Amino acid sequence: MGKSNLDLIVECDNFPYYEDDRAAYTENLNKYYAFKVSGYNCTLGYILNTVVEKFPWSEKSWAIDSSAQTVTLVTPAGANPAHRSKLVAADIAEAVKQDKFEVLKGWRNENYAVYGPGGEFLLEMERSATPLFGIVSYGAHMTGYVQDESGFKIWVPRRAKNKQTYPSLLDNTVAGGMCTGEMPFECIVREAMEEASLPEAVVRAAIVSRGCVTYSHVRDARAGGETGLIQPEVEYVYDIKLDPETIPKPGDNEVEEFKLLSIPEVQAALERGEFKPNCANIMIDFFVRHGLLTPENEPDYLQIVARLHRRLEFPTVSHCAR
Amino acid sequence: MGKSNLDLIVECDNFPYYEDDRAAYTENLNKYYAFKVSGYNCTLGYILNTVVEKFPWSEKSWAIDSSAQTVTLVTPAGANPAHRSKLVAADIAEAVKQDKFEVLKGWRNENYAVYGPGGEFLLEMERSATPLFGIVSYGAHMTGYVQDESGFKIWVPRRAKNKQTYPSLLDNTVAGGMCTGEMPFECIVREAMEEASLPEAVVRAAIVSRGCVTYSHVRDARAGGETGLIQPEVEYVYDIKLDPETIPKPGDNEVEEFKLLSIPEVQAALERGEFKPNCANIMIDFFVRHGLLTPENEPDYLQIVARLHRRLEFPTVSHCAR
Repeated sequence: MGKSNLDLIVECDNFPYYEDDRAAYTENLNKYYAFKVSGYNCTLGYILNTVVEKFPWSEKSWAIDSSAQTVTLVTPAGANPAHRSKLVAADIAEAVKQDKFEVLKGWRNENYAVYGPGGEFLLEMERSATPLFGIVSYGAHMTGYVQDESGFKIWVPRRAKNKQTYPSLLDNTVAGGMCTGEMPFECIVREAMEEASLPEAVVRAAIVSRGCVTYSHVRDARAGGETGLIQPEVEYVYDIKLDPETIPKPGDNEVEEFKLLSIPEVQAALERGEFKPNCANIMIDFFVRHGLLTPENEPDYLQIVARLHRRLEFPTVSHCAR
Repeated sequence: MGKSNLDLIVECDNFPYYEDDRAAYTENLNKYYAFKVSGYNCTLGYILNTVVEKFPWSEKSWAIDSSAQTVTLVTPAGANPAHRSKLVAADIAEAVKQDKFEVLKGWRNENYAVYGPGGEFLLEMERSATPLFGIVSYGAHMTGYVQDESGFKIWVPRRAKNKQTYPSLLDNTVAGGMCTGEMPFECIVREAMEEASLPEAVVRAAIVSRGCVTYSHVRDARAGGETGLIQPEVEYVYDIKLDPETIPKPGDNEVEEFKLLSIPEVQAALERGEFKPNCANIMIDFFVRHGLLTPENEPDYLQIVARLHRRLEFPTVSHCAR
């Protein structure tokens, strides 16, 4: 028996829900400290207790409260994002120097932003450190497909064997993380050119925004590095209908090859667990949106649709340009 | 200033979330009793305390526990849905006789089903009584649109002035509640013929299943009858792209007229609060799915998408025919 669609969703959205078991939810939360920034009354992420014990918190920057289970970045009133980011970066650098965490060996040299209430930009930190702090990260995923009288076919890439995370697994046609200041549409256009060699004009003309998929992921061994770290994520979702003549090609070293798969081929690969977990979610969302999964053919339809759109319990940004 | 899209979503999905304010959530829950059925360890709905006080619970059928705040339908082991439904129907008939509740004046003579863990069918009850018990109800909504080089236009009906609920408000092209045993696709096909006079062959050929919208609604005066009653709902969502020649026409006494509105006209009507609340949700979901609302033009995009797909805290059915 292969994995069901709900199995795949639950592998990705695997942080507990309060409503399912109130006692178990609270007990699980005890495994984490809340990450806070002074002056803001909100939790920005969850830090595993074992990370709190190991991380080289510099005394001048951090207040650790072991009874309230909070880790607070303490700065003078009027501190700005650059100031906060510098303090955090210094301690992350120290953690690298002391070789404290496996995840930091996957250093990306990209900064991810942390947002407070109302989407206020509070600070940024190195991408590979974000799972240590359990902060919300943002990305954009696009499904490239062709459609004719025989139905849909989907362009599916296989990740390179030497990728730091999820090597050799299947992926979405184009996908990428959003660095500080990046906007979803521009992010997916850039990635489509870099990763799939799609011409910019084709992408800008044909891309359609289709919503977003959100989940709270607890990392396992496949992600590389420490397990049990929380990674709440927002993936903005795009479709692009391609002419049969437009063939995606690997444009950087991230992708090994692209194959045009039928829906039954994609479903079989999903059942075998061949997709990167969050990319399986995006594929299942595509199936729901295009009427390939329906209430009549998917026994877990309601659970699937709700868990593809988890309401995250941390502040999130608006990428609105208005 | 008109209503924002998030204002509209929150009017419909207005039952509190645990994560927003844990103390307030728990305090609010104290206003309700949990509706249970003996032999099943789950809550099927929330009954307002004031309803518990007024409802003519017959002693032989119900156990009321005021310290645990539970109302349990007690039947011998081996009771079947027909048996349970008969007991509930008898007490609802008594409530009608004693003129206990305003909502029962909107008697529909349609039965809605109540499902337990694993989607097991437990009982059915008269539609107008469901908000008293706070059980999950199911419906299907379809947006009929035309699309040309100038963009989308949407067929929008106005509800009849003499409808029991939400008279004269704007609605989705076709919408209806699902009675016991009904399947979503067949429900929407039937309603499309009855309410909009769309030919069956056109509907069956062009309809596309697009997901579902879920929310927990606390009823206000516009719904008619008692306020504060909870109505958690699942609306299966369909699109149908119509030829310019296919014109929906009122087919029963539920709809006054259909108008073909441009997207700015629909948006303006939403801002003015002219749509029935849950139909506003379906329109906003349409805008998200078709790239009319995007992360770049909607400041509340993430909240909106998550709250269009609330994970309900009660057992739900699978309508899967497999």
